[in-house]
Amino acid sequence: MIPRYSRPEMVAIWSPETKFRIWFEIEAHACDAQAALGVIPKENAEAVWRAKDVKFDVARIDEIEAVTKHDVIAFLTHLAEHVGSDQARFVHQGMTSSDVLDTTLNVQLVRASDLLLAGMDRVLAALKTRAHEHKDTVRIGRSHGIHAEPTTMGLTFARFYAEMARGRARLVAARAEIATGAISGAVGTFANIDPAVEEHVCKMLDLTPEPISTQVIPRDRHAMFFATLGVIASSIENIATEIRHMQRTEVLEAEEFFSPGQKGSSAMPHKRNPVLTENLTGLARLVRMSVIPAMENVTLWHERDISHSSVERAIGPDTTVTLDFALHRLAGVVEKLVIYPETMLANMNKFRGLVMSQRVLLALTQAGLSREDAYRLVQRNAMRVWEQGADFKTELLADAEVTAALSPAEIEEKFDLGYHTKHVDTIFARVFGA
Amino acid sequence: MIPRYSRPEMVAIWSPETKFRIWFEIEAHACDAQAALGVIPKENAEAVWRAKDVKFDVARIDEIEAVTKHDVIAFLTHLAEHVGSDQARFVHQGMTSSDVLDTTLNVQLVRASDLLLAGMDRVLAALKTRAHEHKDTVRIGRSHGIHAEPTTMGLTFARFYAEMARGRARLVAARAEIATGAISGAVGTFANIDPAVEEHVCKMLDLTPEPISTQVIPRDRHAMFFATLGVIASSIENIATEIRHMQRTEVLEAEEFFSPGQKGSSAMPHKRNPVLTENLTGLARLVRMSVIPAMENVTLWHERDISHSSVERAIGPDTTVTLDFALHRLAGVVEKLVIYPETMLANMNKFRGLVMSQRVLLALTQAGLSREDAYRLVQRNAMRVWEQGADFKTELLADAEVTAALSPAEIEEKFDLGYHTKHVDTIFARVFGA
Amino acid sequence: MIPRYSRPEMVAIWSPETKFRIWFEIEAHACDAQAALGVIPKENAEAVWRAKDVKFDVARIDEIEAVTKHDVIAFLTHLAEHVGSDQARFVHQGMTSSDVLDTTLNVQLVRASDLLLAGMDRVLAALKTRAHEHKDTVRIGRSHGIHAEPTTMGLTFARFYAEMARGRARLVAARAEIATGAISGAVGTFANIDPAVEEHVCKMLDLTPEPISTQVIPRDRHAMFFATLGVIASSIENIATEIRHMQRTEVLEAEEFFSPGQKGSSAMPHKRNPVLTENLTGLARLVRMSVIPAMENVTLWHERDISHSSVERAIGPDTTVTLDFALHRLAGVVEKLVIYPETMLANMNKFRGLVMSQRVLLALTQAGLSREDAYRLVQRNAMRVWEQGADFKTELLADAEVTAALSPAEIEEKFDLGYHTKHVDTIFARVFGA
Amino acid sequence: MIPRYSRPEMVAIWSPETKFRIWFEIEAHACDAQAALGVIPKENAEAVWRAKDVKFDVARIDEIEAVTKHDVIAFLTHLAEHVGSDQARFVHQGMTSSDVLDTTLNVQLVRASDLLLAGMDRVLAALKTRAHEHKDTVRIGRSHGIHAEPTTMGLTFARFYAEMARGRARLVAARAEIATGAISGAVGTFANIDPAVEEHVCKMLDLTPEPISTQVIPRDRHAMFFATLGVIASSIENIATEIRHMQRTEVLEAEEFFSPGQKGSSAMPHKRNPVLTENLTGLARLVRMSVIPAMENVTLWHERDISHSSVERAIGPDTTVTLDFALHRLAGVVEKLVIYPETMLANMNKFRGLVMSQRVLLALTQAGLSREDAYRLVQRNAMRVWEQGADFKTELLADAEVTAALSPAEIEEKFDLGYHTKHVDTIFARVFGA
Repeated sequence: MIPRYSRPEMVAIWSPETKFRIWFEIEAHACDAQAALGVIPKENAEAVWRAKDVKFDVARIDEIEAVTKHDVIAFLTHLAEHVGSDQARFVHQGMTSSDVLDTTLNVQLVRASDLLLAGMDRVLAALKTRAHEHKDTVRIGRSHGIHAEPTTMGLTFARFYAEMARGRARLVAARAEIATGAISGAVGTFANIDPAVEEHVCKMLDLTPEPISTQVIPRDRHAMFFATLGVIASSIENIATEIRHMQRTEVLEAEEFFSPGQKGSSAMPHKRNPVLTENLTGLARLVRMSVIPAMENVTLWHERDISHSSVERAIGPDTTVTLDFALHRLAGVVEKLVIYPETMLANMNKFRGLVMSQRVLLALTQAGLSREDAYRLVQRNAMRVWEQGADFKTELLADAEVTAALSPAEIEEKFDLGYHTKHVDTIFARVFGA
Repeated sequence: MIPRYSRPEMVAIWSPETKFRIWFEIEAHACDAQAALGVIPKENAEAVWRAKDVKFDVARIDEIEAVTKHDVIAFLTHLAEHVGSDQARFVHQGMTSSDVLDTTLNVQLVRASDLLLAGMDRVLAALKTRAHEHKDTVRIGRSHGIHAEPTTMGLTFARFYAEMARGRARLVAARAEIATGAISGAVGTFANIDPAVEEHVCKMLDLTPEPISTQVIPRDRHAMFFATLGVIASSIENIATEIRHMQRTEVLEAEEFFSPGQKGSSAMPHKRNPVLTENLTGLARLVRMSVIPAMENVTLWHERDISHSSVERAIGPDTTVTLDFALHRLAGVVEKLVIYPETMLANMNKFRGLVMSQRVLLALTQAGLSREDAYRLVQRNAMRVWEQGADFKTELLADAEVTAALSPAEIEEKFDLGYHTKHVDTIFARVFGA
Repeated sequence: MIPRYSRPEMVAIWSPETKFRIWFEIEAHACDAQAALGVIPKENAEAVWRAKDVKFDVARIDEIEAVTKHDVIAFLTHLAEHVGSDQARFVHQGMTSSDVLDTTLNVQLVRASDLLLAGMDRVLAALKTRAHEHKDTVRIGRSHGIHAEPTTMGLTFARFYAEMARGRARLVAARAEIATGAISGAVGTFANIDPAVEEHVCKMLDLTPEPISTQVIPRDRHAMFFATLGVIASSIENIATEIRHMQRTEVLEAEEFFSPGQKGSSAMPHKRNPVLTENLTGLARLVRMSVIPAMENVTLWHERDISHSSVERAIGPDTTVTLDFALHRLAGVVEKLVIYPETMLANMNKFRGLVMSQRVLLALTQAGLSREDAYRLVQRNAMRVWEQGADFKTELLADAEVTAALSPAEIEEKFDLGYHTKHVDTIFARVFGA
Repeated sequence: MIPRYSRPEMVAIWSPETKFRIWFEIEAHACDAQAALGVIPKENAEAVWRAKDVKFDVARIDEIEAVTKHDVIAFLTHLAEHVGSDQARFVHQGMTSSDVLDTTLNVQLVRASDLLLAGMDRVLAALKTRAHEHKDTVRIGRSHGIHAEPTTMGLTFARFYAEMARGRARLVAARAEIATGAISGAVGTFANIDPAVEEHVCKMLDLTPEPISTQVIPRDRHAMFFATLGVIASSIENIATEIRHMQRTEVLEAEEFFSPGQKGSSAMPHKRNPVLTENLTGLARLVRMSVIPAMENVTLWHERDISHSSVERAIGPDTTVTLDFALHRLAGVVEKLVIYPETMLANMNKFRGLVMSQRVLLALTQAGLSREDAYRLVQRNAMRVWEQGADFKTELLADAEVTAALSPAEIEEKFDLGYHTKHVDTIFARVFGA
C-alpha cells in the first residue's frame, strides 16, 4: 500500500483498530448465541459487551503477542483486561482462531467492495455525463491506430460506461462470493460449537453462513474476488490508454485537466503530460498482479494450511486500496477531461476525405460493379490522396470510371457525416436505457 | 493443445471446419436480414443458403488466403465458388471482418462453455456419490498437515462438491458474459448496416446483441471468461492435491485406480503413483496461465487493434481443451478412487488419543479452570503422548489435577467419535439440499 | 503452437521423430559407457548402434504405448524390434525413465536456444543496419507521448539494439542453465549406475552433468530459462509498440512494408495497418504467460512429482516456437520498415519551436536569472505558442524581459538542431563499439 | 510491505531519508563534474557539499511538493534552503528528474541485492552445515510421494544448496543488470549535459554508465532483476514444501524448531505446525507476483512514459523486503530444523523391503531373465508385500523362480543400504568441491 495511491476511507478498513473491532463483534455475538443455547451463562455474554465502546489498544495487544506468539490469544487476553478475566472466560469457547480471522477478512472485503462500488458509481456517473455532453461530437474512429470511419466522442464514453457497468455487476457478484462467515471449529465439523452460533454471528454481521468450511473458508471465493478486481483494473487501463492516446502531441483531442500552478516537468515548461492516466496504467498492473497468487491460494493441504495468509495480508489491503484509489483518480480525470472537438475534426480531415472510402466502395458495388472492380477503383483514387495529398472527393469526381457508375450528387452524399451518426441514439438507448 | 490432454468433442469446436461453418451461418443469416430490410434482393439471400450443406474446403480457402492475405475475403471468395459469384455479391455487405470473427469466437466459447458445464456436472455427480458413500467414514482432519480433530471422508467430498458447484455457477455467469454477437461495422456505428441485422443474426445464433461494440466486441468479457476458467482450474488443483496427499506412502488413505496391467514405473514395479492427479496439478497451471494475457487483451487502441488476436488463437482452444480434459480426468479419478477407511482409522490413532485434546481443554475450562490452567494441564499430558508414545486418555486419568476437575466417565466421553460427526447431516443438508 | 505463428525449423525440434532420435542416442551412448565399465557386454552396446540410421516409427511406438501405458518402455520395446530383443536386453539398464526424458528435454531446449540466438542475431543485424542508416535522421523525442526534445531515429534503433543485445547475453546464460544432463537413477543416487555413464552421455551430447539431481533435473533451471524468454518477449513488445505508434495516422513517421498486392482491410482499401507489430504485441503475451507456470514447476514433492510434465509439454514447444517466430517477424519488420524522415521533421515543428524551450530555460538561468524567473518567462511565451499557434522564437525575440537577458543571436542559436545530435557518435560508439 | 515480514536493514534502503540522501549525492557529484568541465562555477559545486551531513526533512519536502506537485523540484527547493538559493542555482543543471530518480532506484536495487546476497549466504551456510551433518542419514527417496529407493538427508540438503547456489549466481548477474546509472537529459541525447557528468556520478556511486538511455534507464533490466527474484522465491518454496512434507504427522521426519513457550494453536495444544515454511510458501507467491508487472513495464511509449513508476514504487520495496525476510526465515528454519533419523528409518521400512525391488529386478535381468520375466517375478512378490504386509526378502527367498536365478546370498545382498549411499561422497564433491 503506497500512501500516495491510497484514500483514507479504504485504508481505515484495513487498520488494526478496525480488525480488532470486528474480532470483538464476532466474539461478542458468538457469546450471545452461546448464551441463548445455554452453553455459557447469560451474564458472561452480557459482560463482554462492556467492551463495546472500547478503542482497543493495538500497542498493548502487540506486546502480548510478542509473548504468546499468537494474535488471537493476545487479543483475547487484552479483551479480558477490559471485561474482567473471570467474566471473559467463556469468550471464544469452541471456536478456533480461523473462525475469527476468516470471518473478519470477509467483513473487510465486503466493506472494501462497498467502497469500490461507490468508486465505480462515481466513474459511471462521470462517463455518462461526458457521453451525453459529447454524444454528437464527431471524431474519427480508428482501428490499428489508423483512421477508419467517423464515430463520436460520446460513443467512446458510452462504451467505457457499458464496460464499467459490466465491471460493477461483476463486483456485485464478487462481493456476494466473499460475503460469508464461518464459526465451525477446528476442522469445520461444529464438534465444539453449535451451527446456531455461526448463524447468529453471520446474521448480525450481514453475512451468509459458509455452507461447508474446514478450518477456513474456502479460498476459491477469494480467488474469484481478486480475479474480478483484476478485470476491472484492466478496464481502467483500457480507458486510461484511450486518454493517453488522445493527449499525444500529434493527436491532441483531449487533455487531462492541468491546474494553472502545476509544473509539468522541471525541464520543459510547455509540456502537459497525461501523468494521471499513465499512472492508472501502472496501477492496473498492481491490481492485476494479485490474481495469480489468489488463485495459487486455492489449494490448501487437507483442512487448511497457512500459506494463503501472508499473501492475503498483502493483497487484501494493497489491491483494494489501489483499485479504490484508481477508480477515484479515473473519475476525476474523466470529470475534468478537457476535450477539443475542433482538433477531432481537423484530425479526421488529415487525409482529405479518405475515411469515406468504404462508403464509396459500397456505393460502387450497389451500382453494379463487381467487388473486385469497385475495390480497384477506390484503391486507385485513395492512393493518390495518401501519396500526393489529393482530395478524395475531387479525385472521384474526376475519375471517369467512377462517374460512369455514380452521379456527382451520389458521390457528394457519401461525404455526409450524418450518415455515420444516424444510429447514435439507438446505441445510447441500449447503453443508458430509453 | 496437446493431443494427449484433449477430448475430440472440444477439439472439434476449434476446427477450421467448425469455424467456416459458423462464418457461413453468420453471413447467410445477415443476408436474410438485409433482404428483409430491402437492402439486398431476396433471391440473393436465398441463394446463399445453397451452400447450407457444403463442407467447406479448408485447403482451398487456405490457398486463396495465401494470395489475398486476408482470411475472411478468402472464405467469401470460396463461398462464391459454391453460390455463384453473381449471386454472392451481396454477401458480407456493410459488414467488417470482425463482425464475423468476433461473433464466431463467441459462438465457439459458448459451445465450449456447454461442454465444460457437462464436464463439471460429471465431476459434481462423482463427488456427490462418493460423499454420500463415505458420509460417515471417519478420518482425521488436518491443519498444517498435522492431525487436528476427526472429520469424515464424506465431508471432504462434500466440500469439493460445494466448491465445484460454485465453479459451475461462475461458469454459467461467464458463459453469459461471452454470449454476445456484434454486426456493427467498421467502428461500431452501424453506418453501413442496420442494427436489425445484428439482432437477427444474434437471435438465430442464440446470442445477445452486444449493446455497444467498436470494430470488436469488448475484451473485458473474455478476460472475465478466462479468469473464471482459472478459478475452476485452481479448484481442480485443490482436489488433486488432496488426493495426492492421501496416496502418499505414509498416509495411503486412498489411491487412484490402478488397472491390473498398468506399469507404474520402468524401474520400481511395486509403485502406484498418483500420476493422474499430479497431471491435473500441471494442467491447472496451464489453464491459469491464460488469465493474465486475457486481461492484457482488454486494452485495445481506440476502436481496436489486433494484438488480442494471436493470444486468443492460442488460449481459446488451448485453455478450453485443457480444462475440458482436466474435468473429465478428475471425474474419472473421483469415480474410481480406491478408498481405505481402515487406514484412515489407523492414521487417526497414530498418536494415541491426542486428537481429542481440544475437547479435554474445553471440558476443563467448563469445569471451572482458567483457560491458562486448562491449557497447561492438557499440554503436559499431550507432550507425554507426543514424546513418549503414551496413551492420552490413560495419562489424563492418571493426572490428579485433571481428575480433580473431570470424572473418569467425563474423560472417557471425550474420546467418543460420534461427538465429531454429530453435525454431518446438517452440513450435508446445507450442501446437497434436504 | 499455432501453425501460422511457427517456423518449421523450430517445430522440428519438438517432433516425436526428434525426440525418439535423442532418446536413442542417450540409450546408445549409455550402453557404450556401461560396456566400457564392464557392466554390460561390448557386443550388446555395439548392437544398439545398428539402429543408428533407423527412422523410428512413431505410430508403432504409440501403438505399444497404448498397451504399456508407459512411453519409455514403449520406445525400448520398439528399439528391441530393430536391434533384436536379446541384444537389446541391457539397454536402459540402471537408468530410470526420467534420465532419458529430462536429458532429452534439455537437449531440445539447447537446440531451441541456438535457433533463438540465430533469430536474435538477425534482429540485431537489422537494428544495427537501420540505426546507422538513420543515425542522423532527426526526430522529436517524446516523453509521456508529448514532444520533448529532438533525438534521432538512429538512436531509437540503437537503443533497441542495445536492449536486444542484452537479451542475447541473457539467452546465452539461460542456455547454459539448461545445458545439463542427468543419468543418475531413480532418486539420483547413482545406486544402479555409475556416474561415469552420465559423464559419457553428457559429453557426447554436449551437456554438463547435473551436479546433483534427484529423479529429475531441478526445475529452477527451466524457470530461469522461461523467465529469460519472457524478458526477451517483453523487449519485442517494446519495439513493436514503438513502430505501432510511428504508424498511427497522425504520426506516420514509419510504416510496416506493404506489398503492392496486399489488401489491408475488406472494407477500407486505403488502410495500411501495422498488423505485424500488433501481432508481435500479442505474441509477447503468449511467451510471457509461460513464466509463472515455469516458476510454479520448481516446487516438486521430494525426489520428484510429475506435475511439471504437462506444463512442459505445452510451454516447451509453444514458447520457443512462438518466440522464434516473433524474432523473425520482428527482424523482417525492421529490415523493411518504411521510414519517413520528412514527416519526422514536420511533426517536430508542429508547435513551432516549442521543443526548444528547455534550452532557452537553461540559457536564461545561465544568464543570471533565478530558476523561478526563467521558468516564468519561458512558460509565458510557450503558452502563446501552445494556445495561439505563435512561433516560439518570434515570441522570445519580442519579449523584452527575455531579450534583456539574451541577445537575438543567442536566442537564434538555441534553435540549432545540431546541438541535440552532437553526442550521437559517442552513444553509437558505446553501443556498437568504436 | 508488511511489517511482520520485513527486516529493518532492507526497509531502511527504501525510506524517504535514504532516497533523499542518494538524490543529494547524485546532484552533488553532478555539480562537481559540471564544475570540472567549467560549466558551472567551482564554488557553487563546493557549496552543495555543505549539505553533506544534513538529514533532509521529509515532512518539509512533502510540504513543498504539495505546492509544486513535483517531487524533485520540491527536493531541490529544500536543498536550496540548506545551501542558499543563490549558491544552489546550478544544481540539477542540464539534468532531468529521471536522471536522478532512475539512478537512485538502481542504487537502491544494488544495495538491496547486496542484502539479498548476504541472506542467500546465510541460507547456503545453513544448508551446507546440515548437509554434512546428515550426509549419511539414510532416508527413503520418494517420487510421486511414493517410496522409491533410499537416499540420504544430506543429499536433500546438498541439492537445496546447489539450487540456492545457482540462485546466488543468478542474483549476482541480476545485480549487474541494474547497476547502471544515467545522467543523459530529457530524451537521452546529452544535449544539455556532457556525458562526462554521467561517468563521474556513476563512478562515485559504483555504477556503470547506461550505454544508451532515453529519459529513463531501459526497463528490460528491471524485468530481468525481478524475474530472477521470482526464481529464487520459487526455490525457497521448493525447500519449504519439502520441510512441510517432512513435518506431516504421518511422516514426521523433521520439525521446525518449537520454542518451549510457544503456543501452536489456541485449540489444540499438542500441535506443532510448520507455520514458518507454510508462511514461506505464501511469501514466495508474493515475490513471484512482481514478475509479470515488471515485464509489462518494459514497454514504454517512445522515450518514456510513467506507467512503470507506480509499479516500481510498490514492487521495488515490497519484493526485496519480502524476499530478504524470507531468506532469513528460511535460514533460521534450516539452522534449527529438528531432524528425526529414526523416523526416517522406520518410514523406509514401512513396506518391508519393497523399496529394494528395483535392485532385485536388475539382478534378475543380469542373471539372464528377460526384462518382461524379471518384471513379472518382482511384481508378483511385491504385490504380496503391498497387499498382505509380507516381508519382501522372505517372499523372494521362497519363490522358486527367483531362487532359480539368484542365490540366497545374492538376494540378501540386494537389501544392503550401503549400495545406495556409495556415491554420496562423489556427489558432495561435485556440490561442495573436493
